[in-house]
Amino acid sequence: MTEMRMAELARRSDLSVATIKYYLREGLLQPGRRTSVNQAVYDAAHLERLRLVRALAKVARLPLHKIREVIQAVSVESSVLGAMAVTQDALVGDIETGALDKTADEALTRAIEERGWRCEPGSPAHRAAIRAVAELQAEGLGALVDRLDDYAQAADSIGRIDLEVVSVVDSLEAMIRGVVLGSVLRRPLLDTFVLLAQQHYANELHGNAP
Amino acid sequence: MTEMRMAELARRSDLSVATIKYYLREGLLQPGRRTSVNQAVYDAAHLERLRLVRALAKVARLPLHKIREVIQAVSVESSVLGAMAVTQDALVGDIETGALDKTADEALTRAIEERGWRCEPGSPAHRAAIRAVAELQAEGLGALVDRLDDYAQAADSIGRIDLEVVSVVDSLEAMIRGVVLGSVLRRPLLDTFVLLAQQHYANELHGNAP
Repeated sequence: MTEMRMAELARRSDLSVATIKYYLREGLLQPGRRTSVNQAVYDAAHLERLRLVRALAKVARLPLHKIREVIQAVSVESSVLGAMAVTQDALVGDIETGALDKTADEALTRAIEERGWRCEPGSPAHRAAIRAVAELQAEGLGALVDRLDDYAQAADSIGRIDLEVVSVVDSLEAMIRGVVLGSVLRRPLLDTFVLLAQQHYANELHGNAP
Repeated sequence: MTEMRMAELARRSDLSVATIKYYLREGLLQPGRRTSVNQAVYDAAHLERLRLVRALAKVARLPLHKIREVIQAVSVESSVLGAMAVTQDALVGDIETGALDKTADEALTRAIEERGWRCEPGSPAHRAAIRAVAELQAEGLGALVDRLDDYAQAADSIGRIDLEVVSVVDSLEAMIRGVVLGSVLRRPLLDTFVLLAQQHYANELHGNAP
């Protein structure tokens, strides 16, 4: 791809010139190559960065400081793991750092060990999972907590497909964009699929033959 | 269980007397048995109804008219299927009735046929699923849409476990309460489990051995 002017960059990134200039001022987009005092040209790397920022801002609706964290991770971290950890943390949001329920923590630890997952014990996702288990217990849904291993097995398939889907791209920025879009847009897909499966099994368990 | 007065009903349902009186006025809770001009007693059926209304109002945060729909379905419908359909519709919320994307519709239909799901084609959940697929396509996540069958398979396990968990209770109200709490509270559990699985597979695909 050859270099392009601002207008072309805006057209191809599906963002307004004003928005791109804002991202430049905020340091979310690296400066273009100056060709005169008030002209610059941009290349494929700029376009890819803009596509990532757009996914974080317009689709995931993350606040500016979270977007900055992810962009920094993509720029500084060269490892997929580091960049993905920062992205996940930004997507999970702020989890209160109060004490976590001990029973829920233990139930989750057992489920993780059962699966053989290698994952970050102190990560926001991990803390959020403990809270989710604790809420189920608090509402008396012990029967559901008893099936934690089965839910973890289903989640295992989903996480594996997610990673397989995003791993075929060839740049870190494109992959992180895939993680962001995948997490945000794949979620309603799965939620609605589960509803359809519930309809099916309600038929199977409580309905009549077709 | 013997009958109880309002104060006891409030204590056992974890709701304030004012809230219970509001539910009585709105017809969400059936009247108690009058014992004097300004006294009434309540029984196990009242408590169970209140637990369902509480789940719909406080956990699922449904608006009053949606709660009324579900309560009516539980009172009038004697079938699990009918009551569950109304509950799902209330949980999905209002989906615009505009034209649906044809390609997304076809992709979803193929995935449903592949699974052999018997589900309601025009239901809000079905329409929401078509929209979810269309959004993925619009964001260029065709690689993810190509794996629709795999996601549907994972959703199948989840829907089956959900139904198995709620089907062990012995009243329709308790089961619908299970569907509501399960849908609302199980969702963050699954979302966070998927994040943990993503961490694991990021390690597997891009990390080093431990």
